[in-house]
Amino acid sequence: MTSRRPSLAVVGATGAIGGVMLQILSQHADVWGEVRLIASPRAAGRKLAVRGEETEVLPLDEAVFDGVDVALFLVPEDVSARWGPVAAGRGAVVVDGSAAFRRDDDVPLVVPEVNPHAARLRPRGIIASPNCTTLSLIVAVGALHAEFGLRELIVSSYQAVSGAGREGVAALREQLSLVAGTELGTGPGDVRRAVGDGDTGPFAAPVALNVVPWAGTDAGDGWSSEELAIRDECRKILGLPGLKVSATCVYVPVVATHSMSVHARFENEVAVDRAHEILATAPGVVLFDSPAAGDFPTPSDVVGTDPTWVGRVRQSMDDPCAVEMFICGDNLRKGAALNVAQIAESVAVEFPRD
Amino acid sequence: MTSRRPSLAVVGATGAIGGVMLQILSQHADVWGEVRLIASPRAAGRKLAVRGEETEVLPLDEAVFDGVDVALFLVPEDVSARWGPVAAGRGAVVVDGSAAFRRDDDVPLVVPEVNPHAARLRPRGIIASPNCTTLSLIVAVGALHAEFGLRELIVSSYQAVSGAGREGVAALREQLSLVAGTELGTGPGDVRRAVGDGDTGPFAAPVALNVVPWAGTDAGDGWSSEELAIRDECRKILGLPGLKVSATCVYVPVVATHSMSVHARFENEVAVDRAHEILATAPGVVLFDSPAAGDFPTPSDVVGTDPTWVGRVRQSMDDPCAVEMFICGDNLRKGAALNVAQIAESVAVEFPRD
Ligand SMILES: NC(=O)c1ccc[n+]([C@@H]2O[C@H](COP(=O)([O-])OP(=O)(O)OC[C@H]3O[C@@H](n4cnc5c(N)ncnc54)[C@H](OP(=O)(O)O)[C@@H]3O)[C@@H](O)[C@H]2O)c1
Ligand SMILES: NC(=O)c1ccc[n+]([C@@H]2O[C@H](COP(=O)([O-])OP(=O)(O)OC[C@H]3O[C@@H](n4cnc5c(N)ncnc54)[C@H](OP(=O)(O)O)[C@@H]3O)[C@@H](O)[C@H]2O)c1
Repeated sequence: MTSRRPSLAVVGATGAIGGVMLQILSQHADVWGEVRLIASPRAAGRKLAVRGEETEVLPLDEAVFDGVDVALFLVPEDVSARWGPVAAGRGAVVVDGSAAFRRDDDVPLVVPEVNPHAARLRPRGIIASPNCTTLSLIVAVGALHAEFGLRELIVSSYQAVSGAGREGVAALREQLSLVAGTELGTGPGDVRRAVGDGDTGPFAAPVALNVVPWAGTDAGDGWSSEELAIRDECRKILGLPGLKVSATCVYVPVVATHSMSVHARFENEVAVDRAHEILATAPGVVLFDSPAAGDFPTPSDVVGTDPTWVGRVRQSMDDPCAVEMFICGDNLRKGAALNVAQIAESVAVEFPRD
Repeated sequence: MTSRRPSLAVVGATGAIGGVMLQILSQHADVWGEVRLIASPRAAGRKLAVRGEETEVLPLDEAVFDGVDVALFLVPEDVSARWGPVAAGRGAVVVDGSAAFRRDDDVPLVVPEVNPHAARLRPRGIIASPNCTTLSLIVAVGALHAEFGLRELIVSSYQAVSGAGREGVAALREQLSLVAGTELGTGPGDVRRAVGDGDTGPFAAPVALNVVPWAGTDAGDGWSSEELAIRDECRKILGLPGLKVSATCVYVPVVATHSMSVHARFENEVAVDRAHEILATAPGVVLFDSPAAGDFPTPSDVVGTDPTWVGRVRQSMDDPCAVEMFICGDNLRKGAALNVAQIAESVAVEFPRD
């Protein structure tokens, strides 16, 4: 009865992604030995349920990583940048969900369905998980790339507010209660005035009864950081440094699950029936594509599920090498917690069991 | 004091577009002589205010067009198809806002900022106004085409529910009051269950806390009618039968104003500064593009205004001949009533005044 399972630390257990991670750990209950829950000193002492047990949240410090085999970081970028190397220095394999290490050459960026082997080569003991927008795309696009050879992606996102964390969700909920039951949304700026000009939460404009074409920070030349992240990360994960990518990132009033309208151009002609076959059998993908019968993915049907859902797959009318599709993926699950958990589980099997 | 102004009939005066038309007629009060308001027998006898006067709604019949110089049709496609030729046969110039005639070779499809002269050649006495999605795009894209030579458009829409008429707005308002103040939007199908499965109004799925990637009817090969309309209409208006167009049409929970994420590829290299200059001076366009300062168009700021607003203009990183941009236009104003009014006013000046 002494099977030694690897031990796990979850840094950021109290956050939006952390909460989903606790669910996933409870569902995959036999992977890990001890599980330590960690957050800032603000949350220390709180109790959270994981695998059916109330577990106390510990404050983040160096000693908390002693004896930890794998440490998941589900915290803001600056906290990962500071503490990820500390955990790795203490011997833990770090799987980081933030942007802190994604662009580093000596940190692999891993999506288990697409480039699982990359997780083995981790000179700094750190593995990064992509941005939620990239993750919503890459499983489906990666499956098609393997057959047709991807050349160009033109992507417009319909991003859920939980992409901006707990505050994003709170802002939408608050704004919705201000606009529901009113006639707002018909006069210039009426929603902005009702919401309060300075009170748009983490968004650059009201998000209720609105869409906000700006996500992340200013990356220069008119681009947002989230748009360039999709380009950089797709190139890195697919190993295609010359891939053409144009992304436009837009928040919509949806709680969770990012959607993407994708124009994908390949080296070879795409037979749309073959694209359907590939997507129907690709791991981690659900093909849901009979639009005249109402079968296409929408965020409110996809939220809370693990796979990437793909619909509206059709051949571009003016380009035999391109397809259009509409993709939905839960940004808190595959878009964050689930991908981190999958990476961690692929590392867990490296630990000897007795 | 006998200046004879041309007389006008507004068929569909009681609808979503009709209501905006009455506002526009009141603002441009000196263009028309007599104005007759027309709807179905259901609405006959109702009084609506136009140019400060309560005016009785007349039921649609042949005689109602006697003495009418210009007849605006703001009614469902089948009603236009049946009654537009009747009005034209009685001598009225018909300006139709529906899809009934847009694809007919002998009916011009007119956007006054882009192809004003096309309105003169109308062998059947009928002029068509484009779909609201096309209209949200074409003024900005047309201005850039004149300088750089358009080759390809890849477009994803964020369409307002009023694109589906009064019923679309009613469905969103109703659904919003069901979801506001709840924790819905986090579990698969929870919004659908709250809204009631059969009760999604004119949409194929709930639109509150959701986005719906399907607009119009099944056009075959996976395309929706609205997506193919954008392709056909952009080609016709710009006179570019070989233009490549891929559109994906998606409803979002916004009351009015369609947004479009646009990748536009031109024959020639695009200097983005020059694109900015063109858009800043193009008629009917407002350039609002300083995203780091929060200046980009959003539907809730644009709604109720006349122009097409353009922001997020940036050069594609991997293609010197392409630009990305985000465009917002009020689908009930420029996207419908205003364009019809502009066409009608361009016809009004043909009538002799004494
Ligand atoms: N939301 C998404 O869709 C998404 C997708 C992919 C990746 N990510 C990334 O995942 C990370 C977490 O995102 P989230 O949405 O879960 O954010 P969140 O809801 O704001 O949660 C932040 C978490 O970080 C903890 N934290 C903050 N400062 C800390 C500190 N100084 N020391 C220790 N813990 C600290 C918080 O603990 P307290 O409770 O103590 O404040 C909380 O547990 C971010 O890097 C984000 O970019 C998010
Ligand atoms: N909504 C948009 O964004 C948009 C944009 C561009 C073009 N369009 C087109 O504009 C047209 C009107 O759209 P809408 O959104 O205003 O629709 P709506 O709100 O549903 O209004 C429909 C109008 O048509 C009238 N009507 C219906 N059946 C009739 C009949 N048999 N005889 C006479 N009148 C009849 C209705 O009168 P009652 O009150 O008597 O029923 C009402 O005035 C449609 O063809 C639509 O495709 C709409």
